[in-house]
Amino acid sequence: MAIKKRIFTPGPTEVPPRVLQSISRPLIHHRTDAFREVHAEIEEGLRYVFRTGNPVLVLTSSGTGAMEAAVANVTMPGEKVLTTPCGKFSERWDEIARAFGLETVRVEAEWGRPVDPSEVERALASHPDITVVLTTHCETSTGVLLDVGAIAKAAHDHGALIVVDAITGLLAEDVDTDGWGLDVVVGGSQKGFMLPPGLAFISIGPEAAARVKKPGHPVYYFDLAKALVSLEKNDTPYTPSVSLFMGLHTALEMVRAEGLEATLRRHRRNAAAVRAAVAAMGLEIFSHAPCNATTAVLPPEGTAGEIVKRMDGDYGIRIAGGQARLKGKIFRLGHLGYYDESDMFTMISALESVLKEMGIIEACGTGIGALLESFASDE
Amino acid sequence: MAIKKRIFTPGPTEVPPRVLQSISRPLIHHRTDAFREVHAEIEEGLRYVFRTGNPVLVLTSSGTGAMEAAVANVTMPGEKVLTTPCGKFSERWDEIARAFGLETVRVEAEWGRPVDPSEVERALASHPDITVVLTTHCETSTGVLLDVGAIAKAAHDHGALIVVDAITGLLAEDVDTDGWGLDVVVGGSQKGFMLPPGLAFISIGPEAAARVKKPGHPVYYFDLAKALVSLEKNDTPYTPSVSLFMGLHTALEMVRAEGLEATLRRHRRNAAAVRAAVAAMGLEIFSHAPCNATTAVLPPEGTAGEIVKRMDGDYGIRIAGGQARLKGKIFRLGHLGYYDESDMFTMISALESVLKEMGIIEACGTGIGALLESFASDE
Repeated sequence: MAIKKRIFTPGPTEVPPRVLQSISRPLIHHRTDAFREVHAEIEEGLRYVFRTGNPVLVLTSSGTGAMEAAVANVTMPGEKVLTTPCGKFSERWDEIARAFGLETVRVEAEWGRPVDPSEVERALASHPDITVVLTTHCETSTGVLLDVGAIAKAAHDHGALIVVDAITGLLAEDVDTDGWGLDVVVGGSQKGFMLPPGLAFISIGPEAAARVKKPGHPVYYFDLAKALVSLEKNDTPYTPSVSLFMGLHTALEMVRAEGLEATLRRHRRNAAAVRAAVAAMGLEIFSHAPCNATTAVLPPEGTAGEIVKRMDGDYGIRIAGGQARLKGKIFRLGHLGYYDESDMFTMISALESVLKEMGIIEACGTGIGALLESFASDE
Repeated sequence: MAIKKRIFTPGPTEVPPRVLQSISRPLIHHRTDAFREVHAEIEEGLRYVFRTGNPVLVLTSSGTGAMEAAVANVTMPGEKVLTTPCGKFSERWDEIARAFGLETVRVEAEWGRPVDPSEVERALASHPDITVVLTTHCETSTGVLLDVGAIAKAAHDHGALIVVDAITGLLAEDVDTDGWGLDVVVGGSQKGFMLPPGLAFISIGPEAAARVKKPGHPVYYFDLAKALVSLEKNDTPYTPSVSLFMGLHTALEMVRAEGLEATLRRHRRNAAAVRAAVAAMGLEIFSHAPCNATTAVLPPEGTAGEIVKRMDGDYGIRIAGGQARLKGKIFRLGHLGYYDESDMFTMISALESVLKEMGIIEACGTGIGALLESFASDE
């Protein structure tokens, strides 16, 4: 028998069979009441996940498309914005802002550490003309969780809007859109939403909605004002990715059946157990503020690439390597989305075997033992 | 038994079961050799369909996203471009161009008629500073075919680039990208490609590629220069819609198995038979230059909406109504994509029954008779 293929990356993540079935149903036309009903229920489900009363738009694009949509619709040319680069994806905000001709004030942190909200406060104080803060919830490339609640507070105290990339964070970590007053929150389908890639989500608060009405940059495909008008009739301005909408509908049903709190608890438990296992095997956790979506691990120098390769070759388990400046230095274990305790058993057992085979650890059992202990003690 | 649902719109079109199966296969990660091999074969298949040696990029967006990508990457701010509005989608080029601050010279035609290439020539002669022509191959809203070969010649004689929306045209009509020297051609998945919506295609000729390297407008998600570099490694800059790529791979296999010439012939035969049936039933064909993708029909005033409704309600057959200024005035029969002769039997028989029921025709048999005759006589 060929080995089974399993995906354990922080996106794309595993897609439940029920969702795959929904995606492969014969097409319905998007300008029909049947589609509009599905869309209305999707909207309700997204608001539940985002914890918001704001409209949440579904865009047919990658998450990056929604990030661009946020910048193009919410900022004005020449404005000064604050970014929080501390990894590949928080760096992306800075790149997009510069592509749109904005001046960016960078509040950075070393990769592996979160940006300090008090430094954001200080930067805002020195730049009274900053109007928008573009930040990241879970930095996927490093497994770092940023304190978005505190950064949002700093932004609001300053009178700036806060725009958050929660693509990897949503459903793995609490995203309290309304409680924290997040003006714009961006999500993506191939993450906690348990879908293939191809859809992005973007919530628009009242102040952002006012800006969206008079975009300062050229917008057409990502014209959010037009999309908001369409949404009132459960419609989209352009042909949506209908099959993925059907899958999203099913995935959101699954999320509601489990409940948001139970979903977050499951992610917290899986992540804590994986971290316990990694530490027990004597490997370093790369992130100094680890998030519950993915665990970035710093193995002995020069071994990361081989570990990723053997996990796939020997066990059919696809984990992620490092990106950009972390390429070949770290590996990342995914526990974001449709994963239960047994999945963690599989992933950590395979990892432990690979590490033993490579001579990085001496005997097997410590890692998986710590994983089981963590699950048992973490109610 | 509930009536079966059948889709006969000019997009989305029917998706073959084999393609639906490919879409619902468990995900593979996009940064793997397995995915790159699929992508390489897709690229080869797209070049076959586009009849080009130029690179053809696959974007995770609707077709409109690729239209925007063309304008954003190929034009410079303040440039003067020529558009050919004669329906909703050719009008879209003008809208996008204006959204990007371009001056547009409109060479229009009444909806239902194609723009005259000699008028394009004259407009180019009066505006020596026009640098790009943005035109449409099949105008979906009216079922009109434009003479893109002649418009391309006019553009080239003038020294302008030609950018073509062939979203509805590809696979229903010959698109000779290299023969006609088309600088940019845009396609979409939910049309002749027999896929759900969610992917767009864009071919980039050498002169366009030179412009793309120094885009004059802000681009990030739709940065075509970056996408062209990624394509060299069969990669995409951002997470692609993996499931739809898998479906596209299968759909292109099917196209190659049938052969492009046979595919075009099938579309020509289906379209000719449908037009013969419509004429035999005494209804007016709206288009004065009908394309082989969709047949727009002008029924007695005030009946179009009811016809569309009854086709769906009585037979589960979803055809399209009119759009924009044609809303409630015409209906559109789709024969673009995965349809054979038997599908045309079904669609026309149902239409004939509905027309009889509504008292628009007196007896059944004329339409379907003409359809069968057309198939029999059209080798």
